[in-house]
Amino acid sequence: MKFTAEQIAEAIGGKIEGDPEVIIDKLSKIEEGTPGSISFLGNPKYTHYIYTTKASVVIVPTAFMPGNPVSTTLLRVDDPYSAFSKILAFYQAQKPRRNGISQKASVSPDATIGENVYIGDFAVIEANVTIGDNAMIYPNSTVETGANIGQNTIIYSGVQIKEDSMVGNHCIIHSGVVIGADGFGFAPQSDKHYEKVAQIGNVIIEDYVEIGANTTIDKATMGSTIIRKGVKLDNLIQIGHNVVIGENTVIAAQTGVSGSTKIGKNCMIAGQVGIVGHITIGDNAVIAAQSGVGNSVPDNAIIFGSPAIDANKHKKVLIHMRNLDKHVKRIDILEEKLKNL
Amino acid sequence: MKFTAEQIAEAIGGKIEGDPEVIIDKLSKIEEGTPGSISFLGNPKYTHYIYTTKASVVIVPTAFMPGNPVSTTLLRVDDPYSAFSKILAFYQAQKPRRNGISQKASVSPDATIGENVYIGDFAVIEANVTIGDNAMIYPNSTVETGANIGQNTIIYSGVQIKEDSMVGNHCIIHSGVVIGADGFGFAPQSDKHYEKVAQIGNVIIEDYVEIGANTTIDKATMGSTIIRKGVKLDNLIQIGHNVVIGENTVIAAQTGVSGSTKIGKNCMIAGQVGIVGHITIGDNAVIAAQSGVGNSVPDNAIIFGSPAIDANKHKKVLIHMRNLDKHVKRIDILEEKLKNL
Amino acid sequence: MKFTAEQIAEAIGGKIEGDPEVIIDKLSKIEEGTPGSISFLGNPKYTHYIYTTKASVVIVPTAFMPGNPVSTTLLRVDDPYSAFSKILAFYQAQKPRRNGISQKASVSPDATIGENVYIGDFAVIEANVTIGDNAMIYPNSTVETGANIGQNTIIYSGVQIKEDSMVGNHCIIHSGVVIGADGFGFAPQSDKHYEKVAQIGNVIIEDYVEIGANTTIDKATMGSTIIRKGVKLDNLIQIGHNVVIGENTVIAAQTGVSGSTKIGKNCMIAGQVGIVGHITIGDNAVIAAQSGVGNSVPDNAIIFGSPAIDANKHKKVLIHMRNLDKHVKRIDILEEKLKNL
Repeated sequence: MKFTAEQIAEAIGGKIEGDPEVIIDKLSKIEEGTPGSISFLGNPKYTHYIYTTKASVVIVPTAFMPGNPVSTTLLRVDDPYSAFSKILAFYQAQKPRRNGISQKASVSPDATIGENVYIGDFAVIEANVTIGDNAMIYPNSTVETGANIGQNTIIYSGVQIKEDSMVGNHCIIHSGVVIGADGFGFAPQSDKHYEKVAQIGNVIIEDYVEIGANTTIDKATMGSTIIRKGVKLDNLIQIGHNVVIGENTVIAAQTGVSGSTKIGKNCMIAGQVGIVGHITIGDNAVIAAQSGVGNSVPDNAIIFGSPAIDANKHKKVLIHMRNLDKHVKRIDILEEKLKNL
Repeated sequence: MKFTAEQIAEAIGGKIEGDPEVIIDKLSKIEEGTPGSISFLGNPKYTHYIYTTKASVVIVPTAFMPGNPVSTTLLRVDDPYSAFSKILAFYQAQKPRRNGISQKASVSPDATIGENVYIGDFAVIEANVTIGDNAMIYPNSTVETGANIGQNTIIYSGVQIKEDSMVGNHCIIHSGVVIGADGFGFAPQSDKHYEKVAQIGNVIIEDYVEIGANTTIDKATMGSTIIRKGVKLDNLIQIGHNVVIGENTVIAAQTGVSGSTKIGKNCMIAGQVGIVGHITIGDNAVIAAQSGVGNSVPDNAIIFGSPAIDANKHKKVLIHMRNLDKHVKRIDILEEKLKNL
Repeated sequence: MKFTAEQIAEAIGGKIEGDPEVIIDKLSKIEEGTPGSISFLGNPKYTHYIYTTKASVVIVPTAFMPGNPVSTTLLRVDDPYSAFSKILAFYQAQKPRRNGISQKASVSPDATIGENVYIGDFAVIEANVTIGDNAMIYPNSTVETGANIGQNTIIYSGVQIKEDSMVGNHCIIHSGVVIGADGFGFAPQSDKHYEKVAQIGNVIIEDYVEIGANTTIDKATMGSTIIRKGVKLDNLIQIGHNVVIGENTVIAAQTGVSGSTKIGKNCMIAGQVGIVGHITIGDNAVIAAQSGVGNSVPDNAIIFGSPAIDANKHKKVLIHMRNLDKHVKRIDILEEKLKNL
């Protein structure tokens, strides 16, 4: 596939500055640009590369003002990351689509399989499962009895979808994900051993959800653990039983959410955060990396630390902490002076 | 299945307060109760729901004194959580049991398979494996040569049991668990590369152990990594080589235990805790979430923080930290006053 | 296999002190030594066991000076851990090697399979995959189209190698690892939903790399996520898209590295560390457990804390923190005294 800068500008909407006829046949990062490639300037940190990049075209923000001469062709758009992302998607869409049901899969005659579905080798589709149109189930994955996989959803290889789990449309479930394992519920007994609390609920994943590799989402003790529309979970995340995560909330890798906690919509939760059970995180909340959240927080809260508090307050605490040596010396001096008075 | 409140009271032991004839045919959480359902009041946080719940019966503690009128039937028991847990178990036991050995499994003729065993599609049972009576091996799991799976043990789908691992009776191993991968042992060489230290030990898991999804338990360098009777591990936990975890200890998600550490019995270890190698955690120890444990702790210790110290001391430190701004201002004022003396 | 102490001394190089004719037929830890076994003294913590061990031979450092009478035969070498490690490797090498391609595997006719390769039951080798000589692919693993597995590399069971991933020679990939899942890239839209950024890059793993169970390494958005020669990753680690990890760097369990970060060579990164995206960690850096690294660090840095600072500075801060109660009381007293002046 070869395109001129001008053809790309027409496709994504944008203004060329430089040679509209330059030919593009690949994509590159700005710092690794080669002739014939198109790149983009998203993070201002990388601005200096624009003066040296070998990329033939670089997508830049409409308002970008070069501080030095630029030899590459610029393509000005409102949001370079989104624009470049469209080109990436177009590029990826050229790849041939997997199709058909492998003879080496195990598909129950009591499963309902939609049109145009891919089911890979050694995938297991048990009884009473529904697979929506255009869904793809990669090799070595298991979809247990009663589960539902929506239309256009991709289940990558080595995924375990436990009984009665509901996965919506247009979802992407990455390799190694476990959906619907038992919640961690045990009743302590007087002799110190624990009796298992049976977990009879399920997991509901709404549409347009993406779940990263090796993440685990436990089923509810009763009722449902719910991941709402548009949620994006990174790798190695733990979601406990009966948790609810609101629409368009994103959570970075290795974060854990304990049982029965409700997280609002449009939250941004960084990596390695721990959130205790039975609390509520308001809408639009932002939680910094490695925070430990022990109490409910209201809408729009921005929190940080372990235990997490208002992020600005925590940043002040951190500055004081780093200066503790100095402050302790100040106390030493005060004591000395007072003694000498 | 339909039961009257009275029948349930007789089955689990308890006293009815209200209509003994009300019919129950499902289970619910107290905040989501619907007519015909039975619920329970475990966490005092949820007490207010008892005045509005639509559940027909709510199991409450014997001593529960409602502060407002209650319209639902109460069933008083000593331990509502345990009582409800019995009902959940009864409910779950109604589900049909998986049975038989799939034609699509790969079962070595040199494996010993007990009575009444389930082996799912594409499960691999290698030579010299023993599978106990009533055990269940779900699809796409691998049990490697020399491993032992005890009676009544469940190995869910996508589990990897490496060579010579011993899993006891009545265990539950959730999807994605890896038992018996190599410990992380390398000998640094003078040219800065590392030589692998061969790992020739195994993992021993005793009876009544439950292991959460995607948790990893490494085999010993020599000898055995041992998980004792009744231990409950949550999801995404890392257990290093040669670790020993004592009876009835519970560990929450995403905690990591480094090599050769010994953990006592009846410990409660919260989520995202890190424990260094070669130390001893005493019996009945309690470790708060996100703690970092760098030294051995005695029996009955309650610790918190990173590095973890006595939990009460750490809580005081946290209060002072949150007030550091105030304390630094106090130093400022003291300096100012002293200057003006 | 039986050997005399003398034969072992000749094989690994070392000096016998005691009975050169004592027969060895097994390996043991020093604290669990039994007659007929050989053990070693690596960690000085374990020195006291040398006076009571039942092991017939113990490998000790050349300079070891017993403080009490020793009844076992000593074998003095420069580096006992490396020497013992050689014996372990020799012991393990006696195990029969897996061989041949299972009839129950799915191997594409368009894959290129080297000499002397093992492919286990229900392993999937897709089209355009190359498997090098002597490589081993255990059961229930998937190697997707376009991927490359080098010579003498072991892919354990339940591993997912996504499209176009390149794994070098002499690598060991443990069970449950996911290589080449999509990076976590989304473009926020004005209505608060996120558009997926297509991930068209891959993962390159160089030679002699070992990757622990259930670790995830995301592919690059464009270009490659690169794990350089000799890197050792423990279990449950997250490596984000476009990360580069330098030669012979070791990372302990449950650490996460965010997208586009470059880590130098010969680094030692402990467990549960979090490293933000788009930064650079210099060569030979050491990062203590549970640290949170928010900024680039130079070569040879030793850092600790969250946020991580110079390790010695952080240790001082920790001492002051533990004494905060005392320091606040000192301020109380100063205020009191000043009031009474």
